[in-house]
Amino acid sequence: MLEKFRFLTAGESHGKCLTAIIDGLPANLEIDIEFINSELKRRQQGYGRGGRMKIESDTVEITSGVRFGKTLGSPLTLVIYNKDFENWSKIMSVNSEDETSEKSFTAYRPGHADYAGSIKYNQKDLRNILERSSARGTAAEVAVGAVAKLLLKHYGITWNSNIIQIGQGKTEEEFHSEIDKAKEAGDTLGGKFEVIFENLPVGLGSHVQWDRKLDGKIAQAVMSIPAVKSVSFGNGQHGYKIPGSEFHDQMYAENGKTIRKTNNAGGVEGGMTNGEPLVVKAVMKPIPTLKTPLNTVDSSDMTETTAHFERSDTCAVEACAVVAEARIACVLANEIMLNNPCDFV
Amino acid sequence: MLEKFRFLTAGESHGKCLTAIIDGLPANLEIDIEFINSELKRRQQGYGRGGRMKIESDTVEITSGVRFGKTLGSPLTLVIYNKDFENWSKIMSVNSEDETSEKSFTAYRPGHADYAGSIKYNQKDLRNILERSSARGTAAEVAVGAVAKLLLKHYGITWNSNIIQIGQGKTEEEFHSEIDKAKEAGDTLGGKFEVIFENLPVGLGSHVQWDRKLDGKIAQAVMSIPAVKSVSFGNGQHGYKIPGSEFHDQMYAENGKTIRKTNNAGGVEGGMTNGEPLVVKAVMKPIPTLKTPLNTVDSSDMTETTAHFERSDTCAVEACAVVAEARIACVLANEIMLNNPCDFV
Amino acid sequence: MLEKFRFLTAGESHGKCLTAIIDGLPANLEIDIEFINSELKRRQQGYGRGGRMKIESDTVEITSGVRFGKTLGSPLTLVIYNKDFENWSKIMSVNSEDETSEKSFTAYRPGHADYAGSIKYNQKDLRNILERSSARGTAAEVAVGAVAKLLLKHYGITWNSNIIQIGQGKTEEEFHSEIDKAKEAGDTLGGKFEVIFENLPVGLGSHVQWDRKLDGKIAQAVMSIPAVKSVSFGNGQHGYKIPGSEFHDQMYAENGKTIRKTNNAGGVEGGMTNGEPLVVKAVMKPIPTLKTPLNTVDSSDMTETTAHFERSDTCAVEACAVVAEARIACVLANEIMLNNPCDFV
Amino acid sequence: MLEKFRFLTAGESHGKCLTAIIDGLPANLEIDIEFINSELKRRQQGYGRGGRMKIESDTVEITSGVRFGKTLGSPLTLVIYNKDFENWSKIMSVNSEDETSEKSFTAYRPGHADYAGSIKYNQKDLRNILERSSARGTAAEVAVGAVAKLLLKHYGITWNSNIIQIGQGKTEEEFHSEIDKAKEAGDTLGGKFEVIFENLPVGLGSHVQWDRKLDGKIAQAVMSIPAVKSVSFGNGQHGYKIPGSEFHDQMYAENGKTIRKTNNAGGVEGGMTNGEPLVVKAVMKPIPTLKTPLNTVDSSDMTETTAHFERSDTCAVEACAVVAEARIACVLANEIMLNNPCDFV
Repeated sequence: MLEKFRFLTAGESHGKCLTAIIDGLPANLEIDIEFINSELKRRQQGYGRGGRMKIESDTVEITSGVRFGKTLGSPLTLVIYNKDFENWSKIMSVNSEDETSEKSFTAYRPGHADYAGSIKYNQKDLRNILERSSARGTAAEVAVGAVAKLLLKHYGITWNSNIIQIGQGKTEEEFHSEIDKAKEAGDTLGGKFEVIFENLPVGLGSHVQWDRKLDGKIAQAVMSIPAVKSVSFGNGQHGYKIPGSEFHDQMYAENGKTIRKTNNAGGVEGGMTNGEPLVVKAVMKPIPTLKTPLNTVDSSDMTETTAHFERSDTCAVEACAVVAEARIACVLANEIMLNNPCDFV
Repeated sequence: MLEKFRFLTAGESHGKCLTAIIDGLPANLEIDIEFINSELKRRQQGYGRGGRMKIESDTVEITSGVRFGKTLGSPLTLVIYNKDFENWSKIMSVNSEDETSEKSFTAYRPGHADYAGSIKYNQKDLRNILERSSARGTAAEVAVGAVAKLLLKHYGITWNSNIIQIGQGKTEEEFHSEIDKAKEAGDTLGGKFEVIFENLPVGLGSHVQWDRKLDGKIAQAVMSIPAVKSVSFGNGQHGYKIPGSEFHDQMYAENGKTIRKTNNAGGVEGGMTNGEPLVVKAVMKPIPTLKTPLNTVDSSDMTETTAHFERSDTCAVEACAVVAEARIACVLANEIMLNNPCDFV
Repeated sequence: MLEKFRFLTAGESHGKCLTAIIDGLPANLEIDIEFINSELKRRQQGYGRGGRMKIESDTVEITSGVRFGKTLGSPLTLVIYNKDFENWSKIMSVNSEDETSEKSFTAYRPGHADYAGSIKYNQKDLRNILERSSARGTAAEVAVGAVAKLLLKHYGITWNSNIIQIGQGKTEEEFHSEIDKAKEAGDTLGGKFEVIFENLPVGLGSHVQWDRKLDGKIAQAVMSIPAVKSVSFGNGQHGYKIPGSEFHDQMYAENGKTIRKTNNAGGVEGGMTNGEPLVVKAVMKPIPTLKTPLNTVDSSDMTETTAHFERSDTCAVEACAVVAEARIACVLANEIMLNNPCDFV
Repeated sequence: MLEKFRFLTAGESHGKCLTAIIDGLPANLEIDIEFINSELKRRQQGYGRGGRMKIESDTVEITSGVRFGKTLGSPLTLVIYNKDFENWSKIMSVNSEDETSEKSFTAYRPGHADYAGSIKYNQKDLRNILERSSARGTAAEVAVGAVAKLLLKHYGITWNSNIIQIGQGKTEEEFHSEIDKAKEAGDTLGGKFEVIFENLPVGLGSHVQWDRKLDGKIAQAVMSIPAVKSVSFGNGQHGYKIPGSEFHDQMYAENGKTIRKTNNAGGVEGGMTNGEPLVVKAVMKPIPTLKTPLNTVDSSDMTETTAHFERSDTCAVEACAVVAEARIACVLANEIMLNNPCDFV
């Protein structure tokens, strides 16, 4: 649980807006709205995105917690309006008198929350699950993460992310051709990416109890992104085939400081930052909404059918990396807020 | 945060005992102490373990929360005494008058918590970090997990785990020869393993908020195991190279139920169990304590040296899988406790 | 910590709006917006309220979590716009270019958060503290509580509240005359009130760990209302002068059930509901903003002065009781969500 | 939720021992075991205590988290053995083969957890509820609070507590005569007491979100003590009859600092410490186990009977005040750990 820097997000994919409340920010932090908007834009870009991303251009409105450009220490509210809500205002209406079956569907989409969600929450119209489980909701998280990044920036922390592989492609050129091929085939692709944070203080997280370990907290934050199915630190995914003599990041003395020549640990030892760059790698599965639809079952009569298709993307790995950056920034912002001289007396 | 089924563990590696308190168990659950002890034994076994594991034979004492073989609903305390404490009673004494520098050390061990922990908690004697960051502490977690498993067993849930790869080895025979070679070289090995839970109800976890997603909670639980550096669900680690048409687990109708022929998602869609086996894969890095020691720095004078070596293991992947099973069982026990008819009205 | 039914609120007193996100609601719960608005109206009423309450007429907008009149199980967002924001849009602007000293002040108001808040959050303009610590924020909590009440209503739970004493007044007529006198004197009054919930299931809360006790959770919820300084259960505030033989609620058998003839315990024994009405009593201190201002210190030059006065109320006990009802409803809604057959197996 | 300084306690009243694990302590804090034991002794004393308190003399054993007299930053385990366990080892046995009905009972004791607890946890033998709901468990909390006090002491914070009223008695002499009379009548008495902490930093807690308010957290901690039914700050319980002009603690300038001449707020304004002494008042109800037993119902056959009597105390208000001190110390220790320069940047 995020205790000092915590947040809740809300909002349906085609509802009026997405909302996030961040509680626990320090006061006097400069809030650069253009920066938040630029992060939202980064989430919408990337080779392989479909039509919806082009229509929308997300911007944030702040309705609390900031005055004259600086945080008050009070909860900060972020609102991102859905640009096409006017087309959905009846379909997504709050009011019972507007009830309609337009845009409802009953065929489970494999790879989505439809099946489990409709059982858990007892829903017949699978749209009632789709609307919250959609990747659209990550826009709110990117906005929250942008605020977290403003806090990290204050402490001199920097970050970036890179795509490592998409399909068989390992360079930008190859990424594009892989995506082009998939698009032509009516198929989709996932990808592998890395997120890096630098200049972190030593000792964020702790080794003393499992739920204080930074790697665990980051793994939760990244694995809970829709479509992420694998999370690793540094060279961790290869740790089963590299012997200890090569894997561990040996230490050397230089000008009275310790240095390392490798970073297989990805900047975390014993559940704490060790001063090396924090390197988190993740795999995004391919987008489960395909033009060439998947076999499935219609929940209304338990007959076989194919899955519902909405205009969608071929590949969204760049966006996913932006979301992962945002999520990790939130974990780090909380750790920064919790990290203090009181850890020893 | 585990709210209904939660626990804290405590204890130093060479202290008097490890202790765990579990809060939030149901009442009337039968507690089979032999089962808990057999789980502790599983953690101590496996090809490649060193001397210490052979000396010890962990058993648990329950000092609260159970009466006449059944839980009371009150907190359950588990105590595991360290068998060789008599040799360490002065070195690990609680009392200031026993202070001694015996067994103290100042050369950071790469791959361990020593460096970050000593800075965070302002310790000169690195034993003060080693003692809590040691893998010894996972014994308490295995005991807690065994209690969680007794709860899962009550609901008909089953589990098992398998080693997938160690070094280049992919079969049991090859595991052993890889370990033998590493041992001879004074080196260590990690490994890749999977943990599987079956017969879980559909809908554990939720898609509605990032910190309710089951995959995130499990990723945290497994990634926070010392030495685990990578966590994946199902075939997730390969999700970057398999197109959507092949990756997603298509659904078919059979006797009025949905079935699947694949389980690439590892039993989790939309942050919820989907009725398929839960398959979690993880990579353990090689043990960082090597007979052929690593280069490092002595914190007392910032000179280069080699890392402290204590009698240790060559490979502990089997134990790590047991710990992962235990950790996942705790997450699932909490979800079972939280899962109820109130999710819809 | 509220784990299943949890929420965050946000918003400055003169900002654009108040916002609340509720996470953890069940699906399919009917949301009666008129009921929420009627609760907001109750908060604004009561003998002794000043001008601002008359101007405003709060209504809620729901922007997520509800479709066609029913909850989706996803987070519900409540927005209450501040009706006079147009007069404050520059003074409370988010943008740094609008910075102004209009409406800023530096004289600490005794009884408010000004002094401690400005030190903690390093603020010179005390408005930066006033805006979040104002009682205005309780409107969001009343809206959240109204949603909680809709859940409780589903389970047949009922509630009401009563004013017990204001000044020396013990009847409605006397309340009014006390308030009239105070108003004339430029003074303010607090009051004592009770909140009652009936038809609660037996066993909400638990005796097994301090932070699971229902009375503790309710005490936190009520004591954290601005101006509440005392919370009691049943006849608890007199428990020091009534002997055990008279205080405890003896039990009798009637038609195969247990009954009680008294309810000094206020419906809670051992940290759990015992089937009797839940009776919570609280004391609200007098409103600290007086027409006849209090002595204080100006933080800008540390000279003595008198406290800043904004148009205010003479007595707001009725509103405070509505807020307390809402807060307790939230605690109970969470307990209902946590309470399930899994407590024993 | 205690995030930095958190703990769980465990143990049955007649079990082998009470156990507490504290997680989140700083490193290098000196742990004075004699101080912890003296606090345990204070809990056992006071005029009006019965036989059991005289038999026992609680002492604590620390089994983790401390080395050579100082904390390691790792979880600290406290164990308090029950001195008369040998007489109860069969009755409270963990093993099913020892099952016995000795000391079992089925008549609900009014004022205790028996009724609600047995329904919630589905228990026939009410001893299975009594054992955890007994006030015995507060010994573990006093030990935890003693460790918290050692942390507070490090920051120069001091504390004390006073009995205000018992029955009609308002002086120590009168307390004794009231207790003597009650004892003679086979009756019991509660009492009103206050706990005071001084030299606290300004700004512990926060006004920004309800669950960050210090008064709420303290109210929860104190109200969850068995037998406490009323909690107030400063002169809060009289706040309904004192007008604003007299209640609020006006501020004056003295040597460039603000001073106050009253402390009706009890040191908390806006949910934060304001630099004045923290004054918490509470009412303990009379002990519900009376020599002249209360009417009740036998759960085995739903017939009327009288409540089970175990050797007990006439009045335990002094002990209750010690427990309240301990509980508040835990809340404050957590706030101290959370309080840091990061609250503003």
